[in-house]
Amino acid sequence: MLTSPLYHHHASHCATSVLSRTLKRSILASSSWTFTNDGGTTDRRFYSTCSSSLKQVDNNVVDVSDDQQQNMTSFPKNSSSTIITDAPPKWSELESSQTESFWSHGIKTPFFLVDLQVLNRNCRAMIQKANECGISLRAHVKTHKTLEGAKYQTIGLKDPKLVVSTLAEAEYYSAHYKDIHYAVPALSKSKLKQIETLTRRIPKFHIDVESEASLKIIEEYAKNHNIQFSVFVQVDCGQHRVGVDPNDEASLRLVQKIHESPHVKLAGLYTHAGQSYACRGKEEIRKVTIEEAKIVSDFAQKLKTLGIHVPTVSVGSTPTCSVGTAEEWSNTLVNEIHPGNYVFYDYMQTKIGSCEIKDCSAFVVATIIGHRPNMNQLTIDAGALALSKDIGCSNVSCASYGYIKEDETLQITNLTQEIGIVTSEKPINYEKFRLGAKLTIIPNHSCLSAAMFDKYYVINNSIEAKLVDVWSNIRGW
Amino acid sequence: MLTSPLYHHHASHCATSVLSRTLKRSILASSSWTFTNDGGTTDRRFYSTCSSSLKQVDNNVVDVSDDQQQNMTSFPKNSSSTIITDAPPKWSELESSQTESFWSHGIKTPFFLVDLQVLNRNCRAMIQKANECGISLRAHVKTHKTLEGAKYQTIGLKDPKLVVSTLAEAEYYSAHYKDIHYAVPALSKSKLKQIETLTRRIPKFHIDVESEASLKIIEEYAKNHNIQFSVFVQVDCGQHRVGVDPNDEASLRLVQKIHESPHVKLAGLYTHAGQSYACRGKEEIRKVTIEEAKIVSDFAQKLKTLGIHVPTVSVGSTPTCSVGTAEEWSNTLVNEIHPGNYVFYDYMQTKIGSCEIKDCSAFVVATIIGHRPNMNQLTIDAGALALSKDIGCSNVSCASYGYIKEDETLQITNLTQEIGIVTSEKPINYEKFRLGAKLTIIPNHSCLSAAMFDKYYVINNSIEAKLVDVWSNIRGW
Repeated sequence: MLTSPLYHHHASHCATSVLSRTLKRSILASSSWTFTNDGGTTDRRFYSTCSSSLKQVDNNVVDVSDDQQQNMTSFPKNSSSTIITDAPPKWSELESSQTESFWSHGIKTPFFLVDLQVLNRNCRAMIQKANECGISLRAHVKTHKTLEGAKYQTIGLKDPKLVVSTLAEAEYYSAHYKDIHYAVPALSKSKLKQIETLTRRIPKFHIDVESEASLKIIEEYAKNHNIQFSVFVQVDCGQHRVGVDPNDEASLRLVQKIHESPHVKLAGLYTHAGQSYACRGKEEIRKVTIEEAKIVSDFAQKLKTLGIHVPTVSVGSTPTCSVGTAEEWSNTLVNEIHPGNYVFYDYMQTKIGSCEIKDCSAFVVATIIGHRPNMNQLTIDAGALALSKDIGCSNVSCASYGYIKEDETLQITNLTQEIGIVTSEKPINYEKFRLGAKLTIIPNHSCLSAAMFDKYYVINNSIEAKLVDVWSNIRGW
Repeated sequence: MLTSPLYHHHASHCATSVLSRTLKRSILASSSWTFTNDGGTTDRRFYSTCSSSLKQVDNNVVDVSDDQQQNMTSFPKNSSSTIITDAPPKWSELESSQTESFWSHGIKTPFFLVDLQVLNRNCRAMIQKANECGISLRAHVKTHKTLEGAKYQTIGLKDPKLVVSTLAEAEYYSAHYKDIHYAVPALSKSKLKQIETLTRRIPKFHIDVESEASLKIIEEYAKNHNIQFSVFVQVDCGQHRVGVDPNDEASLRLVQKIHESPHVKLAGLYTHAGQSYACRGKEEIRKVTIEEAKIVSDFAQKLKTLGIHVPTVSVGSTPTCSVGTAEEWSNTLVNEIHPGNYVFYDYMQTKIGSCEIKDCSAFVVATIIGHRPNMNQLTIDAGALALSKDIGCSNVSCASYGYIKEDETLQITNLTQEIGIVTSEKPINYEKFRLGAKLTIIPNHSCLSAAMFDKYYVINNSIEAKLVDVWSNIRGW
């Protein structure tokens, strides 16, 4: 029997995952730590100083009740009956195994750090918003690509459902979720083969269609393999990246064809207001939110009058879903949102107006490895492979490759492969930013930065900074 | 006994490597293929068309003899006595197992493709140049991070030596190479611990020093752990990223201190003319090459007059080493070059003037997943996570996120996480660039793009395009 390379590829993922779990157990079970102490006292002080200053920021773009804020690191007592997926690790269990501050373990830099308190707050706020709006949440997992992150995104949801950006993610999550939408058009036979497997594996697996030509390819495959694919029609609501033109008669004909085809069934309409990344401030985002909902909803309405049932009308981008409220989505046919970046947020999202610095839950931690006083520079060991070279979006100006929590006047002005150059308009305090000290950086674009790492170190919150978990992500395609 | 997370991390790397080797054997040993056929005929035609047009380009920036060009895919008959490292797989063995064109295997896109004929030519040209100049080559492996690539870089060298950019690379290569320079300053205890292990493991392991403060940290560690570290002094020859100022008296004092210290020994001077990435054309590069060599050589000369022996004077960047000749390096103390990107080259290097399109050996292969005729656009399934968002260097303008071999008028003007937008100033031929067809893209910056993949598919050459190997790389830190 020949062994399929595809199978090996999958096996490789599993093995890596198992190894990472072993590593995780090892780290979490140890009562003392084998990493060397790396000047923890000073680092801890940096982080605490930063946290204190952040306390002064008290506005949150998302609505979280006081009661919920108090409970943000424990699970709702009355929600067990509605949780379908396994619960993430319990805090009490994790905390009892911790004896030292996270920083004292001397994890090698650069590494990727997640503040679970903030992540949990972000996830719960989005769930609450969807509930309040009477809209379902299909959590996009492309930003973190972890099982744990997805579980926080879907805590308490009766029918948890995801969007994924790669088939590698789809494979991984299909062991845990029964409703997954792979939202990147796939037309090659190798991908359709994998999509066939996934469609047979879980109750609801959806793919995308955006033209008659692509429908033809998908239908032909389905016909030849005796399967029916569930398809979302991608609708272009202004980004002009993918999706059908909702004002084109051909788009109506496409959906009509899907409606009549025995080889595919219509899951719904799916749109992504990527143009929201060019916004500055909530008012601009709100306009795009209204536009996004109106365009896709009007298109759904036209289909309805043609007698075509559209089960799902899905909108979403982190800016529009962070700012959007029942007001923007009321009187529309929108019944699903699918944001993803909000789990971590990032520096770019703060510039756009989706969130504030205190809402960012993901960081790249770097070590200061050089002083260059004559140029008022620091050198750090996080370069393009840790932070990514994303300079931010179109007309949103990010003067730095990230936001340095320890001192917001510091800017990362240049990145080579493994080295970052930090400068400031003010004289750098080299006593404070000594050689070997750590910097905690909010990346410009957390999706791209997170994908550079194979694991995330997770701390309970920024005050105690206790290591409570290590998450593995599913990279590649 | 407590298990060190560090150990597990290392074990994880090894296990991944073993799995990848299994995958590789499986792929190469199969006499028929389990991937589906993905429209191979058309794809093959695209690639062949492209290759034919490339034949018309006959200038090479590097000097390769006719004899060597004929032998470029086999090993020199008389070199076995001087090859220390294992030879890469033999072509005859590999070819006999191939029954179909590479393209027919339907590997999922995006994937990373290496043209071994071009890579081999690039590697041999650099070895030959070093030999002709009487300078030794310390091959930088940060671009590909593979064992196989390093072996091509060091074919026939009696004392093969490498530069690495991460400790993960250092760990990996230390099983195969006896002389490794880790060329990113490291000051944290966790890294120094690993450096200690590497120093004890192989005969020659070198690290960097660029200030008295960093020397103090390194010396203290060495003293406390009863070890002597071998150090290169990084010299700033104009990039102003890392390295000592060669015109500062303090820099001489630093080397003097190293010279006198019992805890460190001087391996040499190391400089990187990163400013060469801002050049356009060979003449500008040649000036930087001369400047780079002169600055570090003059500094070495000053040290010599102080009675300090400087074993190695190392220069290098792919632009300066591609253009440099014996003329630029003669009458200097330069005795080592350490380029790395030349193995793959990339679109940016063609703009700088280091090479031509025909010298690029690494590609991202993507599938066309959307047509948007009203905007004269194509959509491809290679986004920022496949190509990286590197837009090129400072004043070197790259209007596209890569060079599309099938049609140089096509430009990748925008990248989101998993999707690329391709446009053209000319009307796109949608008949030729049908849905499902493949595009072969030279990335702007091959170092950053390669690191997004966990393996490279290696073909013998662009005409036959037979899959001959699958290489695994060592990512992370």
